[in-house]
Amino acid sequence: MSPVRQINIAIIGAGGVGKCFLGQLEALVQRRPEPALALVYISTSKKAVYSKDYSPIGFSSAIASVVSSSEAPLNPSDLADYLAGASSKAIIVDNTSSQDVADAYPLFLSRGISIVTPNKKAFSGSYKLWQDIFNAAAQSGARVYHESSVGAGLPVISTLKDLVETGDEITKIEGVFSGTMSFLFNSFAPTSGSGGKWSAEVKKAKELGYTEPDPRDDLNGLDVARKLTILARLSGLEVESPTSFPVQSLIPKELESVASGDEFLEKLPAFDAQMEETKAAAEKEGKVVRFVGSIDVASKQVKVGLEKFDLSHPIAALKGSDNIISFYTKRYGSNPLIIQGAGAGGEVTAMGVTSDLLKVLSQLS
Amino acid sequence: MSPVRQINIAIIGAGGVGKCFLGQLEALVQRRPEPALALVYISTSKKAVYSKDYSPIGFSSAIASVVSSSEAPLNPSDLADYLAGASSKAIIVDNTSSQDVADAYPLFLSRGISIVTPNKKAFSGSYKLWQDIFNAAAQSGARVYHESSVGAGLPVISTLKDLVETGDEITKIEGVFSGTMSFLFNSFAPTSGSGGKWSAEVKKAKELGYTEPDPRDDLNGLDVARKLTILARLSGLEVESPTSFPVQSLIPKELESVASGDEFLEKLPAFDAQMEETKAAAEKEGKVVRFVGSIDVASKQVKVGLEKFDLSHPIAALKGSDNIISFYTKRYGSNPLIIQGAGAGGEVTAMGVTSDLLKVLSQLS
Repeated sequence: MSPVRQINIAIIGAGGVGKCFLGQLEALVQRRPEPALALVYISTSKKAVYSKDYSPIGFSSAIASVVSSSEAPLNPSDLADYLAGASSKAIIVDNTSSQDVADAYPLFLSRGISIVTPNKKAFSGSYKLWQDIFNAAAQSGARVYHESSVGAGLPVISTLKDLVETGDEITKIEGVFSGTMSFLFNSFAPTSGSGGKWSAEVKKAKELGYTEPDPRDDLNGLDVARKLTILARLSGLEVESPTSFPVQSLIPKELESVASGDEFLEKLPAFDAQMEETKAAAEKEGKVVRFVGSIDVASKQVKVGLEKFDLSHPIAALKGSDNIISFYTKRYGSNPLIIQGAGAGGEVTAMGVTSDLLKVLSQLS
Repeated sequence: MSPVRQINIAIIGAGGVGKCFLGQLEALVQRRPEPALALVYISTSKKAVYSKDYSPIGFSSAIASVVSSSEAPLNPSDLADYLAGASSKAIIVDNTSSQDVADAYPLFLSRGISIVTPNKKAFSGSYKLWQDIFNAAAQSGARVYHESSVGAGLPVISTLKDLVETGDEITKIEGVFSGTMSFLFNSFAPTSGSGGKWSAEVKKAKELGYTEPDPRDDLNGLDVARKLTILARLSGLEVESPTSFPVQSLIPKELESVASGDEFLEKLPAFDAQMEETKAAAEKEGKVVRFVGSIDVASKQVKVGLEKFDLSHPIAALKGSDNIISFYTKRYGSNPLIIQGAGAGGEVTAMGVTSDLLKVLSQLS
């Protein structure tokens, strides 16, 4: 038996996903003593805990420690120096949705520090950042995994990578990529029954905590566009950015610039007729309307917006706030490989991060 | 940069899956020069090609070479000696469905030889064999991956392992695990229209190549029972064997011992009334009948057989010969994580094997 190896872990972000991840990590360490995982850094946007001699921070007390800390977080360059200066290999777990942290991935990776993250920004920003990230990883041998950047813990990224790496050809990817949009349309235009008014459903979704604080951050379609950007790039398309293809916003033009989410919700009922019309047009064809993203690889077309589906289509039959992703490939032919289930939530998002961490651990020798 | 590493590959089995796998492997090697993969052994049930100095066999000529070879395959013990005697690490790709080869896995693994395979026999045989396999792997550090043993290339095993390893609790697994059964029931009891006679559908499935040469080998439910055994064990249940839980056979008692598959097909129409009755009983409740497997983890109940489903249930809505697998877990709550798509066929089965091979390659240092 080789001596017990140690891997240093640095966690950036201690919000909803970060807390769930810490819980899963603590349980993991109890089940799997090897390799020994040492939490040597944890930070929120304002505070951090770490020590020069890399003393491990207790997993169960980590949140309390960082909340009561008086240290500021290290900037990316200092964090890279700190982690690269240890004798053990290091993994950064980025549980933020910060563009600044994402921009530092090439630096971390070039210093041999692996990364696991649900942060979409790194992989759906500029194409140059995407290239810098994977070039840095290829050169240093550090790993970068981001399963939860699309569909939370659902095996979306890993499946797409497996398809591509084994030589299958992706022809089309189509699906419902937003839990919020899924909930809204499954309630507004159900396959049986009549559904509520659009503005009422948006209000309900917000009250249930299914939307961002300002629901326009869901309704503008950008979150879905970011996920599509990631999948399109993994399918081989050089998508420049999440705004370089058509994205339909469900925010009425007149409400784009109102001051707050509350004001938006107050004024939204005046625009219900528009959505009602779209729904009725679909019903006339015996269909329902859904907010989907699709990637047609051959024609290089990526788009996000409303589409009509037959009642028997798996996208129409979706329930609750589930996501569904269909991969059409050369090998799978006319019946796609489909993955479906909750695509948001702290525990399932953290699960994707934890499972990525396990993959990196199995590869770090 | 470290020097180019070499990994030796030994392929057992050159049938349908074996040929597709070789094609994928050849394409893979062209795309990824490192690590260098050397095919040092390939065998059918009667013949083999290999050389004492481990000269690589050409991927594209491997099938022709083994067909025209006059060498007999090595027995497991000699094959282990041969592979372990090289300076490079070795991976055995078992593309057979042989119990004899499966029985040798503990030996191979204990010698540090990793295994990737679609062979169900190793993981659904006796519980002792299962334990021996994973104990041998844990002790030597060799890897064993078997994605295609359930659902071919669909990410079933990897998803279940990720759920379990990250600390989720599996409560129930349910699904259609046989492409043959899927095709038969989607045709016999479609959600719209009336479907054909049972015996006619079985005959059609056989003509289309969707059944084993003797369709009874599908209708006895054992193939599904083997897959359930694997998933139940991965979920933490110590299932003794695929015959240690209730498995409903669709072979009429009177036809169990007729001499041939052809005679069986000839005599099957006399028993159509039984299946027609089952179908009508489901229709009375507004449901359709499907052949499913299920695992209830809390009550430790595993069973395989006919069940009734609402027309809107994803299992009822399945198409063609697709598989569907629903994972109910603590984290995912009442809406399961669902994986759906082709669960049989040479290319998609080989894809699971190739993707397992890539995982092992990423872990062998």
